[in-house]
Amino acid sequence: MCELLGMSANVPTDICFSFAGLMQRGGKTGPHADGWGIAFYEGKGARAFHDPHPSASSEVARFIRNHPIKSCTVLSHIRRANRGRVALENTHPFQRELWGRLWTFAHNGQLAGVKRWPLRHYHPVGTTDSEHAFCWMLDRLREEFPASPPAHRLASMIEALSRRLAATGVFNMLLSDGRWLHCFCGKRLAWLTRRAPFGPATLIDEDLSADFAKETTPRDVVTVVATRPLTRDEAWTVMEPGQYVVFRRGERWMHRRVPTPALEQAA
Amino acid sequence: MCELLGMSANVPTDICFSFAGLMQRGGKTGPHADGWGIAFYEGKGARAFHDPHPSASSEVARFIRNHPIKSCTVLSHIRRANRGRVALENTHPFQRELWGRLWTFAHNGQLAGVKRWPLRHYHPVGTTDSEHAFCWMLDRLREEFPASPPAHRLASMIEALSRRLAATGVFNMLLSDGRWLHCFCGKRLAWLTRRAPFGPATLIDEDLSADFAKETTPRDVVTVVATRPLTRDEAWTVMEPGQYVVFRRGERWMHRRVPTPALEQAA
Repeated sequence: MCELLGMSANVPTDICFSFAGLMQRGGKTGPHADGWGIAFYEGKGARAFHDPHPSASSEVARFIRNHPIKSCTVLSHIRRANRGRVALENTHPFQRELWGRLWTFAHNGQLAGVKRWPLRHYHPVGTTDSEHAFCWMLDRLREEFPASPPAHRLASMIEALSRRLAATGVFNMLLSDGRWLHCFCGKRLAWLTRRAPFGPATLIDEDLSADFAKETTPRDVVTVVATRPLTRDEAWTVMEPGQYVVFRRGERWMHRRVPTPALEQAA
Repeated sequence: MCELLGMSANVPTDICFSFAGLMQRGGKTGPHADGWGIAFYEGKGARAFHDPHPSASSEVARFIRNHPIKSCTVLSHIRRANRGRVALENTHPFQRELWGRLWTFAHNGQLAGVKRWPLRHYHPVGTTDSEHAFCWMLDRLREEFPASPPAHRLASMIEALSRRLAATGVFNMLLSDGRWLHCFCGKRLAWLTRRAPFGPATLIDEDLSADFAKETTPRDVVTVVATRPLTRDEAWTVMEPGQYVVFRRGERWMHRRVPTPALEQAA
């Protein structure tokens, strides 16, 4: 099991507080000691940091924690290797360009047989099933849509592809092009939206509190998505297996529950 | 004019000394104040850092300078914007995957009309002519070679594509898949190979010296490529316009002079 962390906000927001909790799980309060990575979108570009070393002792992680990088869309991942050796090229999040946009993907779980699924346009650099699944998703999207489709059609396709991947094992996923944050819960994922009136929050993994009222304006909307709730005093929504949620500028933009057999037949 | 910096080495080597000189050119001793980026290969993966802010005052640049990241292949770029606004997505080096390898590209110079050249597989995320040229090169390589070709055939094709781009303006380029470092001099590029017996070196741009004899073993071979020589007391090879050189594990692996008209006709 790895730990995922994502953020979607309507104003550039730093993720230092949540990241402080997450990085403790990388080798200190959690067993996820096989590297970590984070991507911060800024316009159409993204700053990505990857480190195959444990985040709890990583100099780069310490730097990010102490130098707030503000962003509207962030994806992060702490890895416990179960497929693919511990190496930089196997460290999430993975990135590829599609339709002139930079796509970023992070996954936890294991997928059976996915590495045998054929690929055409995108090929993995590393050896993880996760990167292969990402390449396969982009391949399918590219085949289906030669140019960037309307957001609803795109989201429906991403949902359908996620369900196909989830059928092979455990597929908890964060995926973004910098605008929409697509979240699929295969087994475990939770989210929380902070908005006015902002209050205090205390991390579960470290003795650290924040009072967001001091750092925000009344119009700020910030959603944090994580494998498990990161704070002890806020009302997280724990997703059900099979749920798919998309966030846009901090707000929930689309959500789909587990399809019933009848709905699946109709689709 | 932007500043390029590349390194090819036979053992993982830190580039802190050269980088210290280069980053001073970003807003302090040079006018290249519109962002900078660097990529360090580690196996098949690469750690990349991008910052649209001047390198001389960049916290990330300071971090890299003070926390040596050892690598056999490094590409870096400091930007003075002349095409495309100052933004993260316009900050070199650019990266794309081809044949399951991560390719990294940095360019200085201006290219006329290249942004109208058609693209099929790769599309720019930003608005620079440089990224368009990179996408075009990878497009051509992918069309020519469905799978990774032998290194000599690949290098000849990269040389030919570089010449076509250089015909449209100024094309100083560094390109790598992590193994070979391809360097094309459109107007200005210089390189230096350090090997035993190692001696001292003094930066031109900052009052900083290094004694490589203390940090190396007799078998180390390290080549540094830069727009202009970075040190005052070493014998840099200044490339001629039209020259193409490829380094592999620190050694010059292939070099081509400016083709004579007769040779061009025969090719």
